[in-house]
Amino acid sequence: MQNNKPLILVTNDDGHEAKGLAALIEAAASFGEVVVISPDGPRSGMSHAITTIVPLRIEQYKNENGISFYKTNGTPVDCIKLAQKVVLRNRKIDLVLSGINHGANSSVSLLYSGTMAAAIEASFENIPAIGFSLLDYSPNANFDAATKIASNIIEKALKDGIPAHTSLNVNIPKQPIEKIAGIKVTRQTKGYWNEDLVEQFDPYGRPYYWLVGELVDTDHGEDSCEWALRNNYVSVQPVQFDLTAHQHINSLKKWEE
Amino acid sequence: MQNNKPLILVTNDDGHEAKGLAALIEAAASFGEVVVISPDGPRSGMSHAITTIVPLRIEQYKNENGISFYKTNGTPVDCIKLAQKVVLRNRKIDLVLSGINHGANSSVSLLYSGTMAAAIEASFENIPAIGFSLLDYSPNANFDAATKIASNIIEKALKDGIPAHTSLNVNIPKQPIEKIAGIKVTRQTKGYWNEDLVEQFDPYGRPYYWLVGELVDTDHGEDSCEWALRNNYVSVQPVQFDLTAHQHINSLKKWEE
Repeated sequence: MQNNKPLILVTNDDGHEAKGLAALIEAAASFGEVVVISPDGPRSGMSHAITTIVPLRIEQYKNENGISFYKTNGTPVDCIKLAQKVVLRNRKIDLVLSGINHGANSSVSLLYSGTMAAAIEASFENIPAIGFSLLDYSPNANFDAATKIASNIIEKALKDGIPAHTSLNVNIPKQPIEKIAGIKVTRQTKGYWNEDLVEQFDPYGRPYYWLVGELVDTDHGEDSCEWALRNNYVSVQPVQFDLTAHQHINSLKKWEE
Repeated sequence: MQNNKPLILVTNDDGHEAKGLAALIEAAASFGEVVVISPDGPRSGMSHAITTIVPLRIEQYKNENGISFYKTNGTPVDCIKLAQKVVLRNRKIDLVLSGINHGANSSVSLLYSGTMAAAIEASFENIPAIGFSLLDYSPNANFDAATKIASNIIEKALKDGIPAHTSLNVNIPKQPIEKIAGIKVTRQTKGYWNEDLVEQFDPYGRPYYWLVGELVDTDHGEDSCEWALRNNYVSVQPVQFDLTAHQHINSLKKWEE
């Protein structure tokens, strides 16, 4: 065990068998000691959910090339808590990496994202953290370019650091590496999901609904994450977790009377 | 049907049988036409999670005093989507009320909260929304004061409006009404949850873990939600959903080169 190597925790929300997780481990492996703790199946759209109604299970299922692999019935955020309190206990985690997600986490998708929630959870306790997402939902997506880009960004983060209590939301266009225009530092695109709830019926005639939809971009700025991605840039968004609408505090003060 | 009455959607994260939901319906009933869509059981700590792996079910289980009650297997955020797309379809929702939660949603608890996620989801589409939480986790908590306070705040919100794309995070001290010091408009307290994962063993000798913990307040401001609550004020925090750490965009620009 080389104690001067950074301790890197890798997690995701697509589960321990996802191709994107393997890609991120590949990108991380050369930079430090890697420990992998991921959900035991898909947890897309789990946001910052935690598990309190059932107990958490965690199991080491593999140890390969010096990398320990654990899986849990919990959420991505639970993975961070289990890492700190059960698996790595008193060890200082130098970097949390989450992903590589199958699908974009741009605009308000950030708020639904389990991938980014794991990174944000780490930033609560000032652990530098990066979530990576590739704009390709396919389970068999090609992660070749994304792996190289993740490696490049991990190197920058370890060299320069990440601002305190901040995580990074990195979205990667679905393009071969030679088509990638570069990195843009962006802000969250204004928008919302326009959803449909597709009605189907079970064999007993009872209706049920599948949530589908598409992101509506209501932004017009060239500094937004959606603009960057449309123009084949890798979007790097610094993320904080103070949800206060500070600009509206004064106008509400009249309610204090 | 009186079409000039505001259409008020009530939801929560503690499920359709929670005492806090009944309290919020009581507070809302005099202000407009009320429709209730809530999860069919506890969904605490579900944050902004959505359901995509299983289909959503929704069932009307009661119609009482002109109020329609629906329950779903989904999350609090799913309740908002089901309201818009399945139950109320093309009708304009004038106000979303979520809660009254059994337990605080102050500081970073806001990010784990299903109660507040439902309100934030509504604010994505510019529907005015308020989440209410009482600082009492007990299923049998006394909601007498909280019901009066919710009624007062609903009245203010319908009269003055809520800023665009903003929701309100209202936390109420566990005190009788005469001990409540008033309303304070607050910002999110800096802090984090210091957790423990309590290990237990099943009859087969396999370990499992229960997530427990307490909020650590690292803030020293008298404008924070925790300060207000400690001093018996009702905390009203305006909430936005742009997670961009705008203050760190410039320092990261060097990564673009």
